[in-house]
Amino acid sequence: MIDLRSDTVTRPTPAMRQAMALAEVGDDVYGEDPTVNQLEKEAAGVFGKEAAILVPTGTMGNQIAIRLHTEHGQEVICEARSHVLDWEMAMMAAFSGCQARTVEGERGVLTWEKIRRAIGPKIYYRQPTGLVCVENTHNMAGGTVTPLDLMKEIGRGAKEAGLPVHLDGARVFNAATTLGVCVAELTAGFDTVMFCLSKGLGAPVGSMLVGSAKAIERARVFRKALGGGMRQAGVLAAAGLIALNEMPKRLAEDHANARLLAEAVAKEASAEIDLDSVETNIVIFRLRGEADAAAFCAALKQKGVLASAIGPHAVRFVTHYDVSRAACEEATGVIATELRALRG
Amino acid sequence: MIDLRSDTVTRPTPAMRQAMALAEVGDDVYGEDPTVNQLEKEAAGVFGKEAAILVPTGTMGNQIAIRLHTEHGQEVICEARSHVLDWEMAMMAAFSGCQARTVEGERGVLTWEKIRRAIGPKIYYRQPTGLVCVENTHNMAGGTVTPLDLMKEIGRGAKEAGLPVHLDGARVFNAATTLGVCVAELTAGFDTVMFCLSKGLGAPVGSMLVGSAKAIERARVFRKALGGGMRQAGVLAAAGLIALNEMPKRLAEDHANARLLAEAVAKEASAEIDLDSVETNIVIFRLRGEADAAAFCAALKQKGVLASAIGPHAVRFVTHYDVSRAACEEATGVIATELRALRG
Amino acid sequence: MIDLRSDTVTRPTPAMRQAMALAEVGDDVYGEDPTVNQLEKEAAGVFGKEAAILVPTGTMGNQIAIRLHTEHGQEVICEARSHVLDWEMAMMAAFSGCQARTVEGERGVLTWEKIRRAIGPKIYYRQPTGLVCVENTHNMAGGTVTPLDLMKEIGRGAKEAGLPVHLDGARVFNAATTLGVCVAELTAGFDTVMFCLSKGLGAPVGSMLVGSAKAIERARVFRKALGGGMRQAGVLAAAGLIALNEMPKRLAEDHANARLLAEAVAKEASAEIDLDSVETNIVIFRLRGEADAAAFCAALKQKGVLASAIGPHAVRFVTHYDVSRAACEEATGVIATELRALRG
Amino acid sequence: MIDLRSDTVTRPTPAMRQAMALAEVGDDVYGEDPTVNQLEKEAAGVFGKEAAILVPTGTMGNQIAIRLHTEHGQEVICEARSHVLDWEMAMMAAFSGCQARTVEGERGVLTWEKIRRAIGPKIYYRQPTGLVCVENTHNMAGGTVTPLDLMKEIGRGAKEAGLPVHLDGARVFNAATTLGVCVAELTAGFDTVMFCLSKGLGAPVGSMLVGSAKAIERARVFRKALGGGMRQAGVLAAAGLIALNEMPKRLAEDHANARLLAEAVAKEASAEIDLDSVETNIVIFRLRGEADAAAFCAALKQKGVLASAIGPHAVRFVTHYDVSRAACEEATGVIATELRALRG
Repeated sequence: MIDLRSDTVTRPTPAMRQAMALAEVGDDVYGEDPTVNQLEKEAAGVFGKEAAILVPTGTMGNQIAIRLHTEHGQEVICEARSHVLDWEMAMMAAFSGCQARTVEGERGVLTWEKIRRAIGPKIYYRQPTGLVCVENTHNMAGGTVTPLDLMKEIGRGAKEAGLPVHLDGARVFNAATTLGVCVAELTAGFDTVMFCLSKGLGAPVGSMLVGSAKAIERARVFRKALGGGMRQAGVLAAAGLIALNEMPKRLAEDHANARLLAEAVAKEASAEIDLDSVETNIVIFRLRGEADAAAFCAALKQKGVLASAIGPHAVRFVTHYDVSRAACEEATGVIATELRALRG
Repeated sequence: MIDLRSDTVTRPTPAMRQAMALAEVGDDVYGEDPTVNQLEKEAAGVFGKEAAILVPTGTMGNQIAIRLHTEHGQEVICEARSHVLDWEMAMMAAFSGCQARTVEGERGVLTWEKIRRAIGPKIYYRQPTGLVCVENTHNMAGGTVTPLDLMKEIGRGAKEAGLPVHLDGARVFNAATTLGVCVAELTAGFDTVMFCLSKGLGAPVGSMLVGSAKAIERARVFRKALGGGMRQAGVLAAAGLIALNEMPKRLAEDHANARLLAEAVAKEASAEIDLDSVETNIVIFRLRGEADAAAFCAALKQKGVLASAIGPHAVRFVTHYDVSRAACEEATGVIATELRALRG
Repeated sequence: MIDLRSDTVTRPTPAMRQAMALAEVGDDVYGEDPTVNQLEKEAAGVFGKEAAILVPTGTMGNQIAIRLHTEHGQEVICEARSHVLDWEMAMMAAFSGCQARTVEGERGVLTWEKIRRAIGPKIYYRQPTGLVCVENTHNMAGGTVTPLDLMKEIGRGAKEAGLPVHLDGARVFNAATTLGVCVAELTAGFDTVMFCLSKGLGAPVGSMLVGSAKAIERARVFRKALGGGMRQAGVLAAAGLIALNEMPKRLAEDHANARLLAEAVAKEASAEIDLDSVETNIVIFRLRGEADAAAFCAALKQKGVLASAIGPHAVRFVTHYDVSRAACEEATGVIATELRALRG
Repeated sequence: MIDLRSDTVTRPTPAMRQAMALAEVGDDVYGEDPTVNQLEKEAAGVFGKEAAILVPTGTMGNQIAIRLHTEHGQEVICEARSHVLDWEMAMMAAFSGCQARTVEGERGVLTWEKIRRAIGPKIYYRQPTGLVCVENTHNMAGGTVTPLDLMKEIGRGAKEAGLPVHLDGARVFNAATTLGVCVAELTAGFDTVMFCLSKGLGAPVGSMLVGSAKAIERARVFRKALGGGMRQAGVLAAAGLIALNEMPKRLAEDHANARLLAEAVAKEASAEIDLDSVETNIVIFRLRGEADAAAFCAALKQKGVLASAIGPHAVRFVTHYDVSRAACEEATGVIATELRALRG
């Protein structure tokens, strides 16, 4: 099977497996796991922040960030199709007691001007804005990239407005790869950044939240509360160190593969795709003529290609470490055949 | 002062004051206040529902309804500028743990088709839809009315989809007046309806939630939780009975007065108004040329007219029992003068 | 009927009814109700605090206080049978996200030493203590009074420990009456105090929260959130002013009446009563021989006396404005008869 | 170092490390990780329940259980020193909106009679009881065991009362070992059971929740919400399978070692220990003469023994896989020396 459903399906590399087997571990609730400590130190360094914390999932990382920047009864400004809103089980409300104030970005990309207009007035009988949350790359918009100048502008604007700003950077290394900047520069204006060791970086389990020493200290409280205070987490951190240090450099391959798939789709009349939106490892397109996305994905599966129906007529491919160039080339043939079959 | 800021400013009528002074009362937490019991029975009757409960405010009524129809971690579909989202202190999140899924209605009016498309897919790793919430008349859209057929369609659609549907009917008597139908028919397809005894109906304090006996029984639990379990509430219910029985019949006057104001505004080049949206007692318009709404309201105030700036350039008038036809006529003169002054 | 179930059943006096009918009112959400403003100013003065806010119920006042002093995930130290724990719908958890850390007081009376031992250690993987909450008089312990020196000690201790301290003073005027001190002195060490205008003070609806200007400013936010932002609340405040100014001075009568009832109970072998605990207007006693409290109350009701069964074998009387000395004398006869009947 | 602070410090065995390195994995959010699926199937089998779910921590397992059995605004009956109350960050309140109703058990052991008396009356203006939660073995009481007949009685009683009952069985295999019964029989009357693969069973990370298919299906929702939806969790499950299948049989060794330590303590006049409470792998004792527990632990550490100060004068040892019989024998010498030094 060529699994293009998500980059979450990547399996640990042999090097990761060996590192897990040999990892030096301790009880991380007591702060005594040397491998976790090393990973947290290195992650903070890579992002140019004071501190970092390992969490089991990106959802936990984002929700800890929302919780620590806000208080119950506030608003969080976020893009209308953002992951924190659509795929995190309403925990912004259920755990942090906050309400989303959504803003539509072009291809999921927010500008400070759009954010600024969504900030609530300061009157006691209206909920105040507590946080700005940005997603880069933006998953449901197709892995689109918010460029460096907009990121800086948002960081500056939020600071001037006295608002904290969090980055859902589940795939921030993909964004940095496309932009040709380092993640530290790209995220410099953000108070906290969550990024995933799994997904494109290939670790089996784990995400990280980076920020100031004070923010991360508070994050430890909420990680414990959410049930993320794992004990000998060094077994995961060992794979995470490889993910952090070795894997970002190869993301350009995934991007090239995504481009390959996107261009194959663009050639077919039965599909509608915005090629300019394919900037990283995600390809989203619509089937014309109201063709059924689930049925289309089922047909692909019959021929060995797994894809996601993310709407009634919308299909998503995600490239990653476990699908090689050759596999993607093979997939383009299958995809083309099935797209043509739709027209029959 | 001619106070056009909101119909919430109405003062109790002499008849209401006398009724409050003479009301037979008891301890309503024990269900022993005869005046409250009578009001709740009559309100249920007017709406053709099994039961009703008196609450101190419309916010409490709406939030009880959201709480009783949902569970934490769900989504509530509502219009993008609805009162439950914008003016109820994020309690949908902070008390019910639910997240809003917003839909933009034309002039605030939702259709079932728009609502249907916002219902979440039923997959375990995404928050499910728990409730549909409609607002009629729609305050921030300018008191606009969702017509009878759309209301029926929404009720039917929600029932077929297995979703409860709540009406924020703070001003539902205004809607019914414009439509020329009774509130019972207009709201027949809704599981619960909140309406205000204050606002257009003129009572000093109080709103009601109506619905099935079972829903209202649960509402009593949440009213107690929110701190709305008042004791000798009969003093308020006495005014509420007059509001319920006597005041709806005069709402057409407020609507005529709003029309008068709207037409005066429409004549002035410095204002932009959608006259078709002025269907009830609310008039919203924008000042052209980026003129400052707060400054404009301050200028009106100097001449004895109070209005609300509801956006940087948006102004709202609301007509009600305490502003007579004559007062509104006087206000049109002031408004015209000040609008012309903007062009200077 | 002689209604000894609770002092919550008091009906407004003729003077209160007249004041309600004549009250000057405005929209209190805008801060424009002159009668509410006067009541809030006078209440703050009586307690020697900077500010006060009117709320519909004592539950709302207490829960606002808990919310404003804490954040989600903390502990509130309170007595094991306190009202905030037993009778406020778990809102400490459901609205403030806080957990009770209970301490048993002798006759409901806490000491600083007991409170101090319940403060949690400051380690990141344990929930911290956020608030100390005291109840004076203590309802379920039988209206018992925490004396002045203990109140001062608690205030001092909490301050030294860096913890806010709230007083559930629903019946704090009863405590002050018994102690012969003014409420301002009694509550000087407390950051916030909630007291009821209803109950012993006889207003139909209303309680107040007093504290620093900053605390009360935040209280307005949470009052709005809980749905307590009433409009022309001056109709209630008018009665509240009489309750605040006229009614405290007569509470000694209620206490004398409670003593009368308690001594009547003490004479009967079928009842067990701690006479020393009868310090204010509440009388609690147990029926010996496992006699059924509900059946006993039903028997009293047959003879015109209403009482509360507050446990399988526990009965409570509460004296108040609506039961005169003569009525209490009459009640003692009924009570004695029925207690003797139990022995049959 | 001989680390007796907690059994949470155990490091994965070589077999576990190898299993982790070789584990077949998939994306568990999609239900496709074969190793996780096998572990969940086997765990359900061991407990005689329909289904099981892997979670990162015991806290997450317990809090998912509390969430799925209750709704916001209810009470959870639990022992006064239980882990869900004292060490889970007030999440019972902060995530489930529930309030604890605590009951003191003798040595932490609850009886149905005690639980029954704590069930709240069913009146609308009081929060209802939603769940009974038992802890076996009971950590803070010293690893004490609730015997089989009491467990059965509680299960029966709860069923008759219509209440769900959850077992915090973090160390339930220790209880079963002491009682000489299998965990399936011991927990048969419980709706859900959480047990830890880490702690005594030695896995580096992971706990499980077992129960009905329906309960575990809902648990998946809350696991995702809390951020516990890990991807290639098979790397952890591989170690978990060894923990589940191989490690319970050796717990008797830990118990014998704890007994050795306890008897050494009991010989010293400076310590006070209830030898009968040492039933499993935990030893708790108090230092006489108000001696400082933290200082005592620091002294032990100087000599190579790590212990926990769990109160101002209380010390805890926990035996586990990583401390051998020989190490415990060595520790007894150090402990005896330091206890004698206290008397100086």
